[in-house]
Amino acid sequence: MSAARQNYQFDGAFKMSCGGALESPVLAYETWGELNDQRDNGVLVLTGMSPSAHAASSVKDSTHGWWEEMIGPSLPIDTDRYFVICMNSLGSCYGSTGPASENPSTGRTYGLDFPELRLEDIAVAGRYLLNHLGIVKLHTIVGPSMGGMVALALAAGEPGISSKLLLISTATRAVPQAIALRSLQREMVLRDSAWCGGRYDPDAGPVNGLRLARKLGVISYRALAEWEQRFGRKPIPAEQIADEPFPLRFEIEGYLDHQARKFTGHFDANCYLYLSQALDLFDIAAFGGTVAAGLQRIDAERSLIVGVKSDRLFPLAQQREIASGLKGAVDMIELDSMQGHDSFLVDMDGFRPVVREFFA
Amino acid sequence: MSAARQNYQFDGAFKMSCGGALESPVLAYETWGELNDQRDNGVLVLTGMSPSAHAASSVKDSTHGWWEEMIGPSLPIDTDRYFVICMNSLGSCYGSTGPASENPSTGRTYGLDFPELRLEDIAVAGRYLLNHLGIVKLHTIVGPSMGGMVALALAAGEPGISSKLLLISTATRAVPQAIALRSLQREMVLRDSAWCGGRYDPDAGPVNGLRLARKLGVISYRALAEWEQRFGRKPIPAEQIADEPFPLRFEIEGYLDHQARKFTGHFDANCYLYLSQALDLFDIAAFGGTVAAGLQRIDAERSLIVGVKSDRLFPLAQQREIASGLKGAVDMIELDSMQGHDSFLVDMDGFRPVVREFFA
Repeated sequence: MSAARQNYQFDGAFKMSCGGALESPVLAYETWGELNDQRDNGVLVLTGMSPSAHAASSVKDSTHGWWEEMIGPSLPIDTDRYFVICMNSLGSCYGSTGPASENPSTGRTYGLDFPELRLEDIAVAGRYLLNHLGIVKLHTIVGPSMGGMVALALAAGEPGISSKLLLISTATRAVPQAIALRSLQREMVLRDSAWCGGRYDPDAGPVNGLRLARKLGVISYRALAEWEQRFGRKPIPAEQIADEPFPLRFEIEGYLDHQARKFTGHFDANCYLYLSQALDLFDIAAFGGTVAAGLQRIDAERSLIVGVKSDRLFPLAQQREIASGLKGAVDMIELDSMQGHDSFLVDMDGFRPVVREFFA
Repeated sequence: MSAARQNYQFDGAFKMSCGGALESPVLAYETWGELNDQRDNGVLVLTGMSPSAHAASSVKDSTHGWWEEMIGPSLPIDTDRYFVICMNSLGSCYGSTGPASENPSTGRTYGLDFPELRLEDIAVAGRYLLNHLGIVKLHTIVGPSMGGMVALALAAGEPGISSKLLLISTATRAVPQAIALRSLQREMVLRDSAWCGGRYDPDAGPVNGLRLARKLGVISYRALAEWEQRFGRKPIPAEQIADEPFPLRFEIEGYLDHQARKFTGHFDANCYLYLSQALDLFDIAAFGGTVAAGLQRIDAERSLIVGVKSDRLFPLAQQREIASGLKGAVDMIELDSMQGHDSFLVDMDGFRPVVREFFA
């Protein structure tokens, strides 16, 4: 757990959008920089599906964050100028209340007693956090991937909440290919007998199912050209090949396995299922009857929409749809990054200048 | 089983390329049309990973085959002119000897006692079948997908075996993305406890793992635009949604589930594992030290290479590589079909004219 983590606990019941409520849930967040006297330099960074609020290092926690090269003094999101807030999504497992948290009414882990989660709930929780921090209007909401969908939900549900939007590799709603991939990922977890109908021991959860699901995630987040260049068909050295049927034989397989094992070491399976389903179910059309009407509810003065040509999970057409549907001044940038959906986390040389220019 | 199926049984031991041998294995095949007196009108159709030899209907079996609109009298592969042979791959489970067959030396199913399988073995088995049929030189080898790799193996291992080649949506070797997908598919099967180290009862095999693997297969075979158009975000009607946690909610999920259940009803898990691994391990470079040298061993007079722009599993660059590496007259056609890798099975309006023109 990051030493920089702060907790905001709601006072009372937090009503969920599809029914049910959470009793005094916690929202974990980190901040960088200082809120100015006008309280108008707040930048809210919303995360993708799996990161924590630890987006960058700070004096309190020197470990690298998931957007370390983007947030900090003199960095593109300049913490000498902005008060930057990153929150762990409601429903996640890095400090914010989610299915892996203790249910205060039973004293046991929520598990499937956690009410249905929608991205709208994450957005509303974010708005409460802003109230708590004394921010009425943000300078910018930055939302990559799922964070961009949450940003749309927040800005459509609370028009005027932010002067500007920076939406990256995101969408108004998932394409069927993305739904298919996530549906299969969920099924991998559900079919792991260790899932136990959601009532697994936290130390003996469905790690095999979650590991397989994460492998598919990594495959869907990256792109062809990068792997061709980086791995090609490099074999795992013969002496390192496991003595078992159908062993991993290529470096790409070893890479995937390594990535997946890192993930299962710290992500909760039920949280994964809830967030994954929320991603499929989100549709900005819920805010106005149609996608166009939902986007029109948002009234940021200026928006930048960034997409990546090699992204197959949130294909470029989806960012174009956002750019053409928003009011105010809207710019669209289409990047050639070769790392697919993950580019915003990896291709810093491509993304840094774009984000720096936006905030300049 | 197709009433049109014929069996060719090898006389004695069939040596496998990576060691081991099969005792008198069987190769199941079907034929259409008649071999002419010059024995030069033979067309060998090699299949993708999972189809049987039943490529088309005939007098003996009126059920539709997997390439029904392509093979028959007056169809693009005209059985009034050509003697068409389709064989079930060695290692498969539709009549040819594979891991699900009985091991004559033990009286039990081979399972993992089946020796390591390479696509080269399927190619060599094909050559024996041609000998049996009295064909020294084919008119054309037609190979889509895995069948195209087997075609390359056959033509590189036996230069001059065919006057022409028609290679569709295939490759000299798999890209890392394809390896990653298949590796994960295999792991889904291996992790199903019903796999039992490969010693499952044929009636109680790892159907869940195989079903998940097939879902991923279908996702990887198709493409974004088709599903966007066909399914979009159409929901499953509320009354048909299962009363269980994280149920299938979108039509695309129901479609995938239906496709996968059809597959697990008749495909053997160990055969799947062997063929999947063989696909990853194939590399035309094995025939000459490099891809270029491997391709140069092939001496067809004329080749047509067909690729599909929306194919992510065997991306277009791979067909271009084949086209630019083969000797003789080579044509390349890049189709706009929107069904991805599966286009050759589905986009008949796109493929029929191409195949018809080739044989005209």
